Amino acid sequence: MTTQTLDGVRISTQANVYFGGKCVSHSVEFADGTKKSVGVILAAELTFNTGAPEIMECVAGGCEYRLAGTDAWVASGPGQQFSVPGNSRFDIRVADAYHYICHFG
Amino acid sequence: MTTQTLDGVRISTQANVYFGGKCVSHSVEFADGTKKSVGVILAAELTFNTGAPEIMECVAGGCEYRLAGTDAWVASGPGQQFSVPGNSRFDIRVADAYHYICHFG
Repeated sequence: MTTQTLDGVRISTQANVYFGGKCVSHSVEFADGTKKSVGVILAAELTFNTGAPEIMECVAGGCEYRLAGTDAWVASGPGQQFSVPGNSRFDIRVADAYHYICHFG
Repeated sequence: MTTQTLDGVRISTQANVYFGGKCVSHSVEFADGTKKSVGVILAAELTFNTGAPEIMECVAGGCEYRLAGTDAWVASGPGQQFSVPGNSRFDIRVADAYHYICHFG
């Protein structure tokens, strides 16, 4: 099961554009103040730094990721998720497109 | 005044990716069934075809557009909008980024 929609949210109309457009996301906020983002990473190999801990949930496409301090690339596809500690980083490589929800905290 | 957020909407988590990622949008739906999309066009010159009529509202950055049957490129920046008839097309060129809301119908 993938999460196809987020309901009852406030969306920021201005996109977040990272790495020259290889990653584009929009920020969303729920009525209770919870913040998430929905986005897509296109074909690329990138490194992201985290502030707050993040859970990356794949909604379409797929990626391979590698957490800081590990050697293994791990595949993540629709309906799967992975957790990244706060104040850390992860590498991600995408062959086509990785559509995701980023959950914070 | 720019429209910084859309409130109380359902957002589709999977992005719409056009032109190899030069245009990325997310579809949103209001409680009354009204559909819009929020997106960004990165540095490119592109041609879009319309089905339904569209109103393109700029929320950040800017573009120049040219409607079908016209020769003039017209600039559109934050807070400005332009209308495109249904079953038509328009050319758009973006130097950096054009963040928009697309209103249908």
